[in-house]
Amino acid sequence: MAFNDILPSIRSAAPLVHCITNYVTVNDVANVLLAAGARPIMADDPEEVEEITELCAGLCLNIGTLNARTIPAMMAAGRHAHALARPIVLDPVGAGASRLRTATARDLLYEVKPTAVRGNISEVRTLAMGTGHSDGVDAAAADAVTEENLAASASFVRAFAAEHRCIAVVTGAIDLLTDGETCYAVRNGRAEMSRVTGTGCQLSALTAAALAAVPVRPLDAALTAVVLMGVAGEIAWSRMGAGDGNAAYRTKIIDAICCMDEEMLMRRAQVEQV
Amino acid sequence: MAFNDILPSIRSAAPLVHCITNYVTVNDVANVLLAAGARPIMADDPEEVEEITELCAGLCLNIGTLNARTIPAMMAAGRHAHALARPIVLDPVGAGASRLRTATARDLLYEVKPTAVRGNISEVRTLAMGTGHSDGVDAAAADAVTEENLAASASFVRAFAAEHRCIAVVTGAIDLLTDGETCYAVRNGRAEMSRVTGTGCQLSALTAAALAAVPVRPLDAALTAVVLMGVAGEIAWSRMGAGDGNAAYRTKIIDAICCMDEEMLMRRAQVEQV
Amino acid sequence: MAFNDILPSIRSAAPLVHCITNYVTVNDVANVLLAAGARPIMADDPEEVEEITELCAGLCLNIGTLNARTIPAMMAAGRHAHALARPIVLDPVGAGASRLRTATARDLLYEVKPTAVRGNISEVRTLAMGTGHSDGVDAAAADAVTEENLAASASFVRAFAAEHRCIAVVTGAIDLLTDGETCYAVRNGRAEMSRVTGTGCQLSALTAAALAAVPVRPLDAALTAVVLMGVAGEIAWSRMGAGDGNAAYRTKIIDAICCMDEEMLMRRAQVEQV
Repeated sequence: MAFNDILPSIRSAAPLVHCITNYVTVNDVANVLLAAGARPIMADDPEEVEEITELCAGLCLNIGTLNARTIPAMMAAGRHAHALARPIVLDPVGAGASRLRTATARDLLYEVKPTAVRGNISEVRTLAMGTGHSDGVDAAAADAVTEENLAASASFVRAFAAEHRCIAVVTGAIDLLTDGETCYAVRNGRAEMSRVTGTGCQLSALTAAALAAVPVRPLDAALTAVVLMGVAGEIAWSRMGAGDGNAAYRTKIIDAICCMDEEMLMRRAQVEQV
Repeated sequence: MAFNDILPSIRSAAPLVHCITNYVTVNDVANVLLAAGARPIMADDPEEVEEITELCAGLCLNIGTLNARTIPAMMAAGRHAHALARPIVLDPVGAGASRLRTATARDLLYEVKPTAVRGNISEVRTLAMGTGHSDGVDAAAADAVTEENLAASASFVRAFAAEHRCIAVVTGAIDLLTDGETCYAVRNGRAEMSRVTGTGCQLSALTAAALAAVPVRPLDAALTAVVLMGVAGEIAWSRMGAGDGNAAYRTKIIDAICCMDEEMLMRRAQVEQV
Repeated sequence: MAFNDILPSIRSAAPLVHCITNYVTVNDVANVLLAAGARPIMADDPEEVEEITELCAGLCLNIGTLNARTIPAMMAAGRHAHALARPIVLDPVGAGASRLRTATARDLLYEVKPTAVRGNISEVRTLAMGTGHSDGVDAAAADAVTEENLAASASFVRAFAAEHRCIAVVTGAIDLLTDGETCYAVRNGRAEMSRVTGTGCQLSALTAAALAAVPVRPLDAALTAVVLMGVAGEIAWSRMGAGDGNAAYRTKIIDAICCMDEEMLMRRAQVEQV
C-alpha cells in the first residue's frame, strides 16, 4: 500500500492522455487532468484516433454519449492502444440502460482488453452478466456496496478482475478496487459528490493518467486515483461556504486536486485491504 | 397559484430526465437538474434513445446544436415519450435563424406534440408563423414582451398554447406562461442572466423535471420552474462580489437552485395573472 | 498602437459570432464572448452553417474535435464567410498531431483564406511546412518562442502572414502577431493559463469578435484580443486565494474579461514592436 510516489510521478511525467469521452463532462475531464499534472487530448474521429493514441501515454474510453461515429473510434483507438501496450481505462457509463450501451461496453471489454474498468456497481454487474439493473447513469439501490455485503461484493469484483485480467474499480459509498488478487476498500469521498455531474468520468480519466505515468504498478496507480478523487471531494467540501451549492463544489473538487500535496493525500487516505 | 409543493416534489421524486440537448450548455443542464433534485441522462444516438426515454420520467428536446444524427434521435425519443404519455419539453433554440432550425422545431411541435414549449418570443413566433425575426439565439428587439404590449403578447401566447394543446413558456424581461386559458406573467430574474450562456436551456430542463415530478399539474410545474430560475438569478446576483463577472454568476445561479428553500421561493415569486 | 477603442467597439457593436468549435471548451468560448460584449452562436451542421454565417458578423473555425460532419461544415461556412467578406479566424488546434488535423487545417487555410490564424508556434509551423512537431495540443518545447530566438521567430511569423495575407497570431510565453509587415510581441499573460483548458480557444473567439466589431483594422483588433486575454489572466491570478486551483482560475479569467475597463487594459498592456 505504498502509493505515495504516484501523484508526484504524474506531475513529473505529465503524461498525454487521449480521451474519447462524453460531451457532458468533457471540460471537467480536461481540467481535472491538467489539475493532476497530466495533459488531455480529445479526439474522436475514426480517421485520426489511432495516430492520436500513438502520441499518448494512456487512453480513456467513456461511453457516456456514445454514437455511431464514436463507437468505431473507441474500438479503433482501443485496439491500437492495446497493440502498443498503452494503458487503457474503460468507463462503461450507463451500461444496462440501453442495449447499445451494454453491447458496446462488452465489445470494448472483450475486444480492447482494457487495463482498468472504472464504473459503478450496476455498470460492472452489467458488464459481467450481460444484463443488469439500471437507474440511468446511477447505480441501482439494490446493487449498492454496503458494509453488510462488503465481502460478497469484493468477491464479485475480484472475480471480474481475474476473469478479464484487468484492474476493476467499482465506486460508490465504499469504493472497491482489485487486480483480481489484492482488493482494497476505500472510504474517502462524500455523498455530495454525486450531485456534481461527472465525478466518475473525472476519476476514470485520473486513473488513465496514473496508469500512464506508472504503468508497471497498475493497482497502485488506480488506488492513487481513487484516493485522490475521494480526498479532493472531502477537502473541497470543507471549503464550501454559505450559499455554495453543487456548482461551487464542482469547481472546488478540481481545485483540490490542483492543490493536493502527497502528504495530505496519504494522511487522509482511508484504505483497507478486504 | 399554489405551487409551493412542486419543488419538494422534484426533490422527493428525483425524476430521471432524458435530455437531447446542445453541447454548449449541456454540463450546466446536467448540474442544474442535480441542483434541483432531479437526475439527468444524456443520450442522443437514434439506436438507443427510445430505451433511454422509456427509463425516464421526462424528456427535454433542445435543438441548440442540432445535426443530421440528433434530429432523428429527437424525433424518435419524442414520439416514444408521447406514446408513453411522458412529459416532453421542446426548446426551439434559434428557430428562425436557419431553415433547418425552423423546420426541425416545427416538425417536433407537430409530430411529438410536446407537453411544454419553452423559448424566447422570437422563437415561439417562428414556431407559430413558420417564419420570423431572428437575432441568432436571442429574441429580436422588435418582438420583445414589454409592459406596453403585455396584453397582446399574452393573447398571442395563449392562442399558441391553445392551438397546440401545450404549456407555452415564453421567457424574456417579463416571462409569460399559459396552458391556453390561465396565463401568468412572471417578473423574477435579472437582465444579467442573458450574459450567461444557457440559462434558457437550464430553464427548459428544469421545466421537464417539474413536469416529470408532477405531471398532473403541468401549469403549476412550469410556473415553478420559471420562478425557480428567476429567483435563483436574483439570489445569485446578490452574492456577487467585486471582480465577479458572468462566469462567477453562472456558478452562483446553479448554487442558488441547489440551496433554494421553498419558503424563499414563494416569498420572492413575482407572479401575476394576465 | 492605438487600440484603446476596440474593446468599447466590441461592447457597442455586440457582434454575433458564429463558432464551429470543439465540444471540450465550447461553453467557455460562449461565455467569454458574452463577457467581452459579443454574442455567440454555435451551429455545425452542413445544412445550416451558411445561413448562420450570413446572420453573423464574424466566424471562428476551431478544429479541436473535428470530425467527418464538422469538417465540411467548417469548409462551407468558411467559404461563404469569405465570399461575404466577413472576418474569419482559424484555430488549427493540434495541427501536426494527426494527418487529418494537418490536412484539414491546411485545406481551411488555402480554401477559406482566413482573416486571422491563431495557434501555438508548433501548429503554425505545421501549417507553414505541412508537417511539424507535435506534443498533442501543446507547442513542442523545441519550437517555443523565446527571448533568444525572438527575431527569427518574428521573421517566420511575418513571412507566414505575408504569404497567406492574413493576421498571424502565435501565442505562448511571448505572443507574436503580425499582418506581414508590422509585428508585435506581447508579454502579458501567465504560464498558469496553460493549466486551464481552452484559453487558446477563447482567444481565437475573442479575436473573431474584435475583427467582427472593427473589420477595417484587423491588426489592432487581433492585438486587442491578445492583450485582453493576457491581462485577464494576470488580473484573475491576482484574485486567486488559498486553495484555489485551475478550476477557480478558469472562472476568474472570464470574469476579468467581463469586468475589464479599457483604461486598465491599456495600462497593463506589454506590447513591443519587433
